[in-house]
Amino acid sequence: MLTLYDDPISGNGYKVRLLLAQLNIPYDLIELDILKQETRTPEFLRKNPNGRIPTIAFDDGRYLSESNAILFYFAQGTPFWPDDRYDQADAVRWMCFEQYSHEPYVAVARFLHHLPDPPAPDLLAEKHEKGYAALKIMEQHLGTSAYFVANRYTIADIALYAYTHVAEEGKFDLSGYANIKSWLHRVKEQPRHVTMRSG
Amino acid sequence: MLTLYDDPISGNGYKVRLLLAQLNIPYDLIELDILKQETRTPEFLRKNPNGRIPTIAFDDGRYLSESNAILFYFAQGTPFWPDDRYDQADAVRWMCFEQYSHEPYVAVARFLHHLPDPPAPDLLAEKHEKGYAALKIMEQHLGTSAYFVANRYTIADIALYAYTHVAEEGKFDLSGYANIKSWLHRVKEQPRHVTMRSG
Repeated sequence: MLTLYDDPISGNGYKVRLLLAQLNIPYDLIELDILKQETRTPEFLRKNPNGRIPTIAFDDGRYLSESNAILFYFAQGTPFWPDDRYDQADAVRWMCFEQYSHEPYVAVARFLHHLPDPPAPDLLAEKHEKGYAALKIMEQHLGTSAYFVANRYTIADIALYAYTHVAEEGKFDLSGYANIKSWLHRVKEQPRHVTMRSG
Repeated sequence: MLTLYDDPISGNGYKVRLLLAQLNIPYDLIELDILKQETRTPEFLRKNPNGRIPTIAFDDGRYLSESNAILFYFAQGTPFWPDDRYDQADAVRWMCFEQYSHEPYVAVARFLHHLPDPPAPDLLAEKHEKGYAALKIMEQHLGTSAYFVANRYTIADIALYAYTHVAEEGKFDLSGYANIKSWLHRVKEQPRHVTMRSG
């Protein structure tokens, strides 16, 4: 049986929980609390030296970390991974975009609002400025395509859905983003969808 | 003929130049100056809405951006991409690590030193703290393996080499990182290697 090390608050962890649910792959869940530094213990650093969840432990003792790498692994040979070589690279492109241009702003703004102290206004303003820039790129793309890659639901959608669907928890206002809102709905209607809290 | 939009100063662009040279794939190079905002013109934003280099234009009019997605595309079917499914995901893992935990610190510290004004000490200290954390993870990994994935030279090495080999331009001191220094040497000795300036 696979083991998934995860924190229920994490959108990066939710990506993995969502794909595994949709692939009907069972796993044992071990919850770690990021805020209590439970991913920075010597024991956990042996599993992932970068001290982050999600991390997968396979039966043979190997580990895999980085949410989008885990999505990549499990999507191989399934409808969640495109068939065409260009489309595959395009899925990697959107996952890189998510980790570099989206997550550090959209996810971190949300994280700042989950901390006990209110976030510094300057820091939050920077997260909002760059987060909205990422959301605008998504909104534009979704004006001509129902999904991010190959016009069908793939792990590129899962990667981008995880923090976009809770952007409002980071005080992003999605009211002017009609294409994103339609896409969020389409993702939620996919077979075997699980929510962030239940997944 | 492929076209590569790039800025010679960019390590992200160098990743692509290095792989294309090692694969002996010819391309037309169009240089854009990031500091002059030449990647933010309406014309370029039609090629890559995220306004970043490197971006590839294919003959059929399609584009591909994100350095590690471009590496992924061209490495398919070549020795630069591992054969095993786990190793492939592990290569994606290291490329995600590079973009999320390495580049924003190691590359950005270098970029700050290329700007006309000296960088703010607080900002630089944060880049160094997190950049050294990434370098320590690399140093540890390279203590047991000659390369990052599957014990051979792959695009995971190219992705991590690009900014690590110029980390000293961002005032990182690699003198305590013997494993990284040996690995940098091994990468440089690969067939058809090109330098950042010549590539």
